[in-house]
Amino acid sequence: MNHYNQLLEISNQLGVIQGISSQLQWDSITYIPKNGIQGRADQLAFMSKLFNKKLTSSTVGTLLNSLMKKLDDFDGFQRRNISVFNKEFERMTKVPLELLSELRKLTSKGQNTWAKAREKKDFKMLKPELDEIIKLKKKIASYINPSVSPLDVFIDQFEPGMNSSLITSIFNNFRPKLIRLLEKCNKSDLNNKKTKFNITMPRNVQEAFLKDIVAYLGYNFDSGRLDQTEHPFTIGGKGDVRITTNYNEKNFVSSLFGAMHEAGHGIHNQNIPQENYFMPVNLFGGSAGFAESQSRFFENIIGKSPEFWDYYFPRFLELTKKEINEDDFVIHINQVRPSKIRIFADELTYQLHIMLRYEIEEEIFNKDLPTHEFPQIWNEKVEKFLGLEIENDAEGVLQDVHWAGNYFGYFPTYTLGNLYNAQIYNTLRKKIEFEESLLNGNIGVVKQWLVDNVHLKTGYYDPSTFLEKITNEPLNSDYFINYLTKRYEKLFQI
Amino acid sequence: MNHYNQLLEISNQLGVIQGISSQLQWDSITYIPKNGIQGRADQLAFMSKLFNKKLTSSTVGTLLNSLMKKLDDFDGFQRRNISVFNKEFERMTKVPLELLSELRKLTSKGQNTWAKAREKKDFKMLKPELDEIIKLKKKIASYINPSVSPLDVFIDQFEPGMNSSLITSIFNNFRPKLIRLLEKCNKSDLNNKKTKFNITMPRNVQEAFLKDIVAYLGYNFDSGRLDQTEHPFTIGGKGDVRITTNYNEKNFVSSLFGAMHEAGHGIHNQNIPQENYFMPVNLFGGSAGFAESQSRFFENIIGKSPEFWDYYFPRFLELTKKEINEDDFVIHINQVRPSKIRIFADELTYQLHIMLRYEIEEEIFNKDLPTHEFPQIWNEKVEKFLGLEIENDAEGVLQDVHWAGNYFGYFPTYTLGNLYNAQIYNTLRKKIEFEESLLNGNIGVVKQWLVDNVHLKTGYYDPSTFLEKITNEPLNSDYFINYLTKRYEKLFQI
Repeated sequence: MNHYNQLLEISNQLGVIQGISSQLQWDSITYIPKNGIQGRADQLAFMSKLFNKKLTSSTVGTLLNSLMKKLDDFDGFQRRNISVFNKEFERMTKVPLELLSELRKLTSKGQNTWAKAREKKDFKMLKPELDEIIKLKKKIASYINPSVSPLDVFIDQFEPGMNSSLITSIFNNFRPKLIRLLEKCNKSDLNNKKTKFNITMPRNVQEAFLKDIVAYLGYNFDSGRLDQTEHPFTIGGKGDVRITTNYNEKNFVSSLFGAMHEAGHGIHNQNIPQENYFMPVNLFGGSAGFAESQSRFFENIIGKSPEFWDYYFPRFLELTKKEINEDDFVIHINQVRPSKIRIFADELTYQLHIMLRYEIEEEIFNKDLPTHEFPQIWNEKVEKFLGLEIENDAEGVLQDVHWAGNYFGYFPTYTLGNLYNAQIYNTLRKKIEFEESLLNGNIGVVKQWLVDNVHLKTGYYDPSTFLEKITNEPLNSDYFINYLTKRYEKLFQI
Repeated sequence: MNHYNQLLEISNQLGVIQGISSQLQWDSITYIPKNGIQGRADQLAFMSKLFNKKLTSSTVGTLLNSLMKKLDDFDGFQRRNISVFNKEFERMTKVPLELLSELRKLTSKGQNTWAKAREKKDFKMLKPELDEIIKLKKKIASYINPSVSPLDVFIDQFEPGMNSSLITSIFNNFRPKLIRLLEKCNKSDLNNKKTKFNITMPRNVQEAFLKDIVAYLGYNFDSGRLDQTEHPFTIGGKGDVRITTNYNEKNFVSSLFGAMHEAGHGIHNQNIPQENYFMPVNLFGGSAGFAESQSRFFENIIGKSPEFWDYYFPRFLELTKKEINEDDFVIHINQVRPSKIRIFADELTYQLHIMLRYEIEEEIFNKDLPTHEFPQIWNEKVEKFLGLEIENDAEGVLQDVHWAGNYFGYFPTYTLGNLYNAQIYNTLRKKIEFEESLLNGNIGVVKQWLVDNVHLKTGYYDPSTFLEKITNEPLNSDYFINYLTKRYEKLFQI
């Protein structure tokens, strides 16, 4: 076997290991009994050690060393396989193992403390551990790349090629336009209309309806499942990509968009070519922004469009036996109303949540903002961006687990995903009849375009290159503003 | 770390690996979508290779070599840990790896072919693969221990210390008594009474009722789950032992005893001391006979006793809203009626099914019975033992997957489990008030006695030694006949 094939063989084994870990995690979140949790932690630690050991073995080092020297002998796809593997290898071997294991422990402790602190609405409880995590993260970043800011190291991990100065300039250009649109919506009668209908629904009815709708979107139940969890998520294996939602009996709209979001992730992952599933391009080449773009395409661009509901609404009524007016429903799911809690935010103000978190991350890593100032800065920015007054840490700085869970540099990918999305949507509309397809129940045409142009090749390029491949131009945040403006103008008659 | 602790550490890792494989298997049988099956096979093969590699590593060989030389330095429990690990190590290292991997492939193919052959009711379809499996099994047995019959090698694997001549003599002594009792039952009016009641029940009602009853038996839902599968089974992890049943909507009695049987396995496994869970005594020291004994204790000795139902029946009626007469029900679940299909057999004629299979296994391995004669011999024995005429292979030789699945030497453990059971029951009744405890709803007393005297120490001794420890005498099959006679005499008024 030549070196390249040897590398692919190792990558394949890493994929198998990762698939096993995913399955164990899925079970931990769905079906595990409480006394099984400790044993499961041992199993996950075992698999994670195995993964790291195989990834950073001297065999891999030797293979990569030899392959990187003759990169020109390979075609583009092969070069990508080699170089993303090499990047991950370097990232993992540059950091001393004990730091990574310390971080794992801190993270797991941090998430527990976060849950308790949020319950007590007291950020001070989390502060000591957050201090430690941030200190350790800075140290780890300096091992990986001492010549850039730690924040850039983290961003690059989730969104290869992206960095904080780029994000700052995108966000700075984008925010005023967003706020102008928000002000316009705020003045609209339809946006402020009280659309009262009964939003309760028994779980079994929700289940039948959600299974129907995600299958209609293109999610394949032969290669996946839909289950219940507290927080919706998608987890994948080869030929087996599972999604979940939280069946909120008191609010089916929240279960619905949870399921549509995860269906977007699921459809994306189900359409990665099976034969390449465990190749480095897929294991290490992905971008969080592109992943988020696809979930939001199905949740928002499709799932909140009047055209989609125009076709699906009769089926919705039939399955749920609800008595709801279609127009009311479409207005309801699109209403723009600043919320203190990010996950309940609408498509527009959601971006402001991301920006405020991102600005704080920037201060943490680029300006050494001390931890004890987090709550105050948070509350000030919520007031400034959303015009809302935070009353306690649980509805403020403690609402997200990300920082306690070591996800620094992740938030911007949510907004980047939306920007990619709108730009892709702009291209897609030139190639196929988008609204017409939705209206006629031909959603498959839209899904297939996304599969052919996005899903089949995610991970084959860095995100900025990939976006250009798909849309023939670099990232331009105006597409998102234009898309939102057009949608709200029509919906709210503004 | 000394050598003994090193061995325990490796055993612990093997336990973790085994727990992961169990979880993957559980999911394969409960929730996997169909396109995930191929990826799952890769995952299971990966874990199984990892297990074998770790078990048969030269490190383990060196450790065991050193420990076996100074076995006298250790106490009884430690010696058992060392020697059962050593036995497994020898078994696995004596056989060339390629033979084991060939067997794995043949077995997996064999099970598929079995399913197809059963559907077509045609044994000839399975014959070529069965030939190969038997040939390979003989070869493997000769590597493990060339000085005894292959059948003895297989029996010893499931029931350490047991062999075919012992089983033959036990069965030969036991069978005539069983047949006399069967004849007596056949003449009983109550046994022949048509107990007509509605045995259909919706799945959700069954689920609530079965969860209630297995929890009442002592199965702990904090350390397990009850799910639906085609064939009921129990699968364990540390702190997480899961059971299943087949919710047969057309016959709740069949789901009920499936669940009670698995609850017995579950309770047994849940009560293995957690701190020793992954020690060699538990990983390699178990006996299939003792495992089956505990499932049947809960299914039959407790679950078919009139006293149990006298207490639980009102609750059963309340949960299921059925209108059934208690006496009718108790007669119904105990009626003795020869069936062509083993898994539908009553407690008494079940043993005849085991004996007929065992006699054929004996001919296969001790007298080289050719495969093409299997159906004819099978049918003749069913006629002789059960007085029934087999019409096709699906209801005859193809009804069990065991042989196609490489489970030779396993059947006798089902009957051995019943024999252990009855002997343990005889001891238990001298120590605690069995019937009274059931009548008063104090089933916990019975369960606790089993936990203290059986579950806590399964695997610490070879089965025959363990049985003597518990009952103060060697295996005596009369206890089972006596138990059955007493139960049927009272129930059927014979």
